[in-house]
Amino acid sequence: MSRADNLFTLHPDRLFSSNSVERDISRALYNSVKDLPIISPHGHTDPRWFAENDCFNNATELLIIPDHYVFRMLYSQGITLESLGIRAFDGSNSETDYLKIWKVFARHYHLFQGTPSRGWMDYVFCEVFGFEIELNEANAEYIFDTINQALATDAFRPRALLKRFNIELLATTEGATDTLSHHAKLKGTGLDKTVITTFRPDDVVDPQIRNFSKNMQTLGTLTGEDVYSWQGYLNALRNRREFFRNHGATATDHGHATPLTADLSAVACEALFQKIIAGEASAQEQELFRGQMLTEMAGMSLEDGMVMQIHPGVHRNHNTAVFQRFGADKGCDIPVGTEYVNSLKPLLSKYGNEKELRIILFTLDEDNYTRELAPLAGHYPCLKLGPAWWFNDSPEGMLRYRHQVTETAGFYNTVGFNDDTRAFLSIPARHDVARRIDCRFLAQLVAEHRMTESAAFELAHDLSYRLAKEGYQNCLI
Amino acid sequence: MSRADNLFTLHPDRLFSSNSVERDISRALYNSVKDLPIISPHGHTDPRWFAENDCFNNATELLIIPDHYVFRMLYSQGITLESLGIRAFDGSNSETDYLKIWKVFARHYHLFQGTPSRGWMDYVFCEVFGFEIELNEANAEYIFDTINQALATDAFRPRALLKRFNIELLATTEGATDTLSHHAKLKGTGLDKTVITTFRPDDVVDPQIRNFSKNMQTLGTLTGEDVYSWQGYLNALRNRREFFRNHGATATDHGHATPLTADLSAVACEALFQKIIAGEASAQEQELFRGQMLTEMAGMSLEDGMVMQIHPGVHRNHNTAVFQRFGADKGCDIPVGTEYVNSLKPLLSKYGNEKELRIILFTLDEDNYTRELAPLAGHYPCLKLGPAWWFNDSPEGMLRYRHQVTETAGFYNTVGFNDDTRAFLSIPARHDVARRIDCRFLAQLVAEHRMTESAAFELAHDLSYRLAKEGYQNCLI
Amino acid sequence: MSRADNLFTLHPDRLFSSNSVERDISRALYNSVKDLPIISPHGHTDPRWFAENDCFNNATELLIIPDHYVFRMLYSQGITLESLGIRAFDGSNSETDYLKIWKVFARHYHLFQGTPSRGWMDYVFCEVFGFEIELNEANAEYIFDTINQALATDAFRPRALLKRFNIELLATTEGATDTLSHHAKLKGTGLDKTVITTFRPDDVVDPQIRNFSKNMQTLGTLTGEDVYSWQGYLNALRNRREFFRNHGATATDHGHATPLTADLSAVACEALFQKIIAGEASAQEQELFRGQMLTEMAGMSLEDGMVMQIHPGVHRNHNTAVFQRFGADKGCDIPVGTEYVNSLKPLLSKYGNEKELRIILFTLDEDNYTRELAPLAGHYPCLKLGPAWWFNDSPEGMLRYRHQVTETAGFYNTVGFNDDTRAFLSIPARHDVARRIDCRFLAQLVAEHRMTESAAFELAHDLSYRLAKEGYQNCLI
Repeated sequence: MSRADNLFTLHPDRLFSSNSVERDISRALYNSVKDLPIISPHGHTDPRWFAENDCFNNATELLIIPDHYVFRMLYSQGITLESLGIRAFDGSNSETDYLKIWKVFARHYHLFQGTPSRGWMDYVFCEVFGFEIELNEANAEYIFDTINQALATDAFRPRALLKRFNIELLATTEGATDTLSHHAKLKGTGLDKTVITTFRPDDVVDPQIRNFSKNMQTLGTLTGEDVYSWQGYLNALRNRREFFRNHGATATDHGHATPLTADLSAVACEALFQKIIAGEASAQEQELFRGQMLTEMAGMSLEDGMVMQIHPGVHRNHNTAVFQRFGADKGCDIPVGTEYVNSLKPLLSKYGNEKELRIILFTLDEDNYTRELAPLAGHYPCLKLGPAWWFNDSPEGMLRYRHQVTETAGFYNTVGFNDDTRAFLSIPARHDVARRIDCRFLAQLVAEHRMTESAAFELAHDLSYRLAKEGYQNCLI
Repeated sequence: MSRADNLFTLHPDRLFSSNSVERDISRALYNSVKDLPIISPHGHTDPRWFAENDCFNNATELLIIPDHYVFRMLYSQGITLESLGIRAFDGSNSETDYLKIWKVFARHYHLFQGTPSRGWMDYVFCEVFGFEIELNEANAEYIFDTINQALATDAFRPRALLKRFNIELLATTEGATDTLSHHAKLKGTGLDKTVITTFRPDDVVDPQIRNFSKNMQTLGTLTGEDVYSWQGYLNALRNRREFFRNHGATATDHGHATPLTADLSAVACEALFQKIIAGEASAQEQELFRGQMLTEMAGMSLEDGMVMQIHPGVHRNHNTAVFQRFGADKGCDIPVGTEYVNSLKPLLSKYGNEKELRIILFTLDEDNYTRELAPLAGHYPCLKLGPAWWFNDSPEGMLRYRHQVTETAGFYNTVGFNDDTRAFLSIPARHDVARRIDCRFLAQLVAEHRMTESAAFELAHDLSYRLAKEGYQNCLI
Repeated sequence: MSRADNLFTLHPDRLFSSNSVERDISRALYNSVKDLPIISPHGHTDPRWFAENDCFNNATELLIIPDHYVFRMLYSQGITLESLGIRAFDGSNSETDYLKIWKVFARHYHLFQGTPSRGWMDYVFCEVFGFEIELNEANAEYIFDTINQALATDAFRPRALLKRFNIELLATTEGATDTLSHHAKLKGTGLDKTVITTFRPDDVVDPQIRNFSKNMQTLGTLTGEDVYSWQGYLNALRNRREFFRNHGATATDHGHATPLTADLSAVACEALFQKIIAGEASAQEQELFRGQMLTEMAGMSLEDGMVMQIHPGVHRNHNTAVFQRFGADKGCDIPVGTEYVNSLKPLLSKYGNEKELRIILFTLDEDNYTRELAPLAGHYPCLKLGPAWWFNDSPEGMLRYRHQVTETAGFYNTVGFNDDTRAFLSIPARHDVARRIDCRFLAQLVAEHRMTESAAFELAHDLSYRLAKEGYQNCLI
C-alpha cells in the first residue's frame, strides 16, 4: 500500500442525480430496495464453482483473465492478449505471472474511467474486499496480495459468497448437450433451487456453430432419439428441455444472429432439415432453419411453460485473427442493426396471442426501443422486454432504456434486471447499479409530478425483485 | 367513493424540471401561454359529434372502447379485447356491461404508470370532470357514475366542450370519398371555421387498401370523372380536393407505408395506372404508384395551396389474427425503420425548391431526427417537420424531438403541436403536455445561457400557437 | 447602433448545467482548460489567408457567404441564394451589396435560435469583435461597419488572429493534386509547423467526382508515374503522401459515401482499376474501388505513419437544382444511414490488429455510437473515434456523443475535438463549446460520484488538448 493513497470509498449517493430534489427521493426509494434478495435469472457463471465450492485462485484469474469487458479495453490500447494471460490455441507464450498481469491492469486502470467496468471493479474492491484506496500502479501488488489472501479463506468460497451476496436465484446457461453434472451435484445441498440452469440449444440449432455435427451426434446419444429425422430431432429437443427443467431450468435462451423467424409447412421443414443435416444448406437456408427453430421453440414453450429469451443482433467474433488464435468471447463481438417487426412476424402470427407463452426480447440496437420493441411489447400478450443488455448494461444504457421504453411499453411489460455475467464477484455491483438507476428514474418521475411517491415505492420493489422473479417463472406453474 | 382515497390533484409544476432554476423559468413561460386558444390542425375526432351535438353515452364508450392506446396496453397483459367491449366481425360475445369494462380498466390502471395515457386520463378526471381522487378499483363505480351524470348535461355536449376547451381550430380527417355531411351541417352554426376537414386520399391512392376498387367507383360517381383514365383520375382528385377545401380543409394527409416518391414520365404513369386499375400490379408496382401519387399530390398542392402531410413508416395491423377478427386501429400498428433521403428525392427534385409548397414530414423512426429530417428541413424551402408523433407524443418523446431537431432545423422549420387524437376529451391534456414540455425545453436553454429570456417568451408563444396556425394555412391565401 | 439595444454578453456559465452542484464543478474544470492552446487537426480554412496575410474584406464575405450553415437555414425559409450573394455558374444576378446581404441575415437572426450557428456567431460578435449588443435589424449596419473597420486593421489579419486565438496547430485540407503553394510559402515564417495540410485524395480515388479524369492526368504529371497502371497509380499516391508530409501533413482524410472497404487480390485490383480508368465501371464497381482504396490507404498509413480519417455517410449535393446552379457545399448535403461493422471488416481483417496504424472514424448516423462505433473502437487497436461531426458539432450533439460513446469506448479511444470548419473566426467559439460541454459532462460524473474530481481534471486536460495533439501525431515518429 502506498503512502500516497487517499481515502477512496463508494459514495452512498452514487448514480443518483445531484439535483437535491431528485436525490432525496432516489435515496428513499433505494433504501427500500437495497437489501432485497438478488434474482439473477440470466447469466454465465460457472456452475462448477457452486458444485465444487473450491477457493478461487487469485485476483488475476478471477477478475481479469475471464472478463472480456476488461481485456477488450486493454487490447484496444495496444496491449496484447498474451500479456494479459489469455491463452492462444497454438500454445504460444502467454503470460503466467499473475502479479505481472495484475500490474498491467493497474497501470491502465484510468482507461476504464467512465465505463461500467470501472464501477463494478471499484465496488468489488471497496465492498467485496473492503479496500478504502483506489487501485493504481503503486498499490497494485498490495491489493493483489490482499485479495489473494481473502480468496483463500472460507468466507470467499463460492457458496459463502452466494449467501453473503443475498442471491436468492442464480441461473447459469448451458448448451443442449451439457450433462449438467454440476447442477446435479447441487441436489441435496439446499442450493439446487438457488443455482439453476438455462437451456441454450444454439449448439444443436445453429448449423454454423463449430462442432454442430458432433453436437447432433451427442444429442442423439443423450436422448436415444433419431436426431436425423425432423420429428426425432424435435423429440430430442423436447427430451433435453425436460432434462434441463429437472435441473431447475425455467427458461431457454437463443443467441441467433438475427431475430428472423419462420413458419414453414411440415413438408418444407422436413426438406430444409435434411439439407441442414447433409451439410448442403446455403447460408440463407441456415438462417431460415434457425428462424424455423425459434418458432418450434416457442411452440415447445407453450407446451412446457419455459420462458423463451431471444438475444439477437451480434456479429460474433468480428476480429478473425483474434478468433482464430484465441477463440470465442474475446471481446470481438460487435452489435449490428437489427430488425424485429418483420423478422418476428411468422412466430407472432402463430403464437403471438398466446397468454401462456412468454418471450423476452433483448437488443443491442437501441433504435428499436421506441421504434419496434416497446410498441411490440405494448401490444402482444406473449412479449416482454429484457433489460438493457451487454454494452448497454451501464448507468447511461439503463437510463436510456427506461426513458425510451417506459412510455410505450409501460413498466409491466419489462422483466427487471439481468446481470448476464460470468464475473461472479461483480453480481452485487451490477444489481446495485440497476437498483440505483431505476430508483433515480422513478425519483425523476416523482420530482416532476408524473407519478406519486407511493406508486414509485411499489415500482421500485417490482423493478428490483418481483418482475425478475415472476417474469422467469414457468408460465404453466 | 372509497374512504381510503387520498387527495389527488395535478401539480401545477408537473412535467417541469425539478431543478429550481429551470422550474421557475418554465413556470413563467408556461403562464404566458397556457391560456392561448388551442389549434388542433391534425386529428381524428368524429365530426358527427359536432354536427349532432348529442350527449356522449358513458365513460366506457367515450374513454375506453375507442382508445387503442388504452386497450393495447390491457391486451398486452392478457386481457381479451372482447372483455373490453371491442366488437369482433363475427359477432362473438363482447362485453356490453360498461361498468364491468370500466372496472377492468380501473383494476389495471397501474399498468399505465409512466405512460402518456396515464397523464391524459388523470387530466381528464381531474381537470375535465373535477375529481380529486385517483382512479382505483374501489372508487371505479363512483367515478363511472359521476362521469356519466356529467356527460348527460349540456355542459358536456361536444360543442360546449369545444368552447370550454378554448379550441380555435379542430381539423378532422376524412377519406377522399367521404361526403363530408357532418361538416356540411356545421355551415351556418358558426363552427364551420372551427371544425374543418382534412383530405386523406389513401382510400383511392393505395391499391392495397381494403375496398380500393369500390372506392374508385365511388370516386367516379362523386366527381363525374372517368377515373379509369390517368387524367380523369387526377381530375377526380383535383375535384375532391376542391370539395374538401369548400369544407374548410387546408391540408392533405398521406399515410403511406414508406415515404417513397417517384417522378415517372406521363407514359409510364399511364401504364402503371392501368396495371393498378386492372389489379395486375405487383406489390412493388403498388409501392411505386403510391410514390408517384405523392409527387402528383405535391403538384396539386402547388396549384391549390393545400399543405401536404406525410405520415409514413408504420406496419399497419401487424397482428393478423386481431386484424381479421376486429379490424384496423386495434393497437397492432408497429413502426418500422424508415428512409427519407433517397425516398423523397424524386419529389424534392421536382418541387423541393418551391416556396409556395409546404410539406410536413412526420416520423416514428426517431433516428431520423438528427440524421435525415432535421438536415432536410433545414435546407429545403418546402419542408417542415411535424411534431413528435403517435408513440412519441409523450413527455419524453417531445423532449427528444426538441433536443434532437432544434440544433439543425431550428424552431421555425417546425409547425407546433398536433394532437392527432380521436379522444376528444384528452385534447386539452395533450396540448397542455406539449406546452409544458416546450416551455421546459426553452427554460433549459435560458437557464444554461443559450437563449435570452425574451427570445424564450416569443418562442413559447410561437410553439404553442402561431406556428401551428400559420403552418397549416393555405399557402396561397 | 440602436438606442433600444440592451446589454448583451456571453454568460460565463453558458452551456453548463444550471444545477448548482454540477455548475460549480464545471466552472472549476473549465477554468483549468480554457486557456490551453487550440489544436485544430481537421478543418477547411483557406491556407492562402495565412500565406498572404491580407486583411479580410468585410463581414458579409467573411461570415455569411462562405458559411453553408448560415445560408442553408436562410434558404430553408424561402430566401434565395442569389439574394445572399451566392454566385451561380450561369452568372445570373447575385447580390453584391454586402450591407444589404448583412441586413437580410440580421433580419432573420431569430431563425438561428437554439442552433450552434447562433452560439458561434454571438461569440464572434462578443468575444472577437467586442460588441455588447445583440445583432438585430436596427443595429445591423452599425455592426457591419464596425466589423469592417476592425477587419482593416493589422490586429485582424489572419496571422494576428492565429496568435490571438492561441492556435498551436491548424490543419487545412487539400486534394491530392493540390500544389500546396500556400503551405510552401509558410516555410521560413515560423508558421509552417502551425498551419499544416491534410492529404485528401478523393479527387483521384473517387471516380464519381467531377474532373476525375483530369485529376488523374494531373496526378501523373505531378509525380512522373504511369498512373494508368495499378502499381504506378499506387506509387503516385505514395509520392503525393510524401509531398504532403513535407508540407506538414500528419493525416489523410477520406470522404467516401459509405465506409465500405475491400481486400481484393492483386489481379482483381488490376482488373478493377483498368475498368475505372476506362470509364467502364458500374456504380457498384466504383464503390468497390473506393472500398479497395481505403484498404490501400490503410496499408500506406502503416508504411508512412499518417493518421487516416474516414468521414462517410453523406448524400452530397442532394438538391440537384441547387448543385447544378451553384455547385457543391451549398448546404444540400444530407446524412444517410451508415453501416460500419460489415463495411469495415475487409480492412480490419487485414490491418485491424496493427498497433502502429491509427484510423479515426466519424459518423453522422448517431445510432452507431452505441451500436457499432463504440464497440469497434473499444476493441480494435487501430481504431479511434472522431468527435461529434458536422450537424452534431453542437452542444446537444456533443453531449449525446459523450453519453453514448464513453461507457463502451472509454475516453482514451477518442481524439479530442475537431472544428472541421472553413469559418476561421468561429474556431475559438467552437473549441470553447467543446471544452465547456466536456467539462459539463465530466462535472456530471463527479457530481454523481461516478468519477473523482482529480480524474476529471486530468481528463478535462486530455479532452481539450492532449488527445487531439497525440491522436493526430504521425504514428511512426
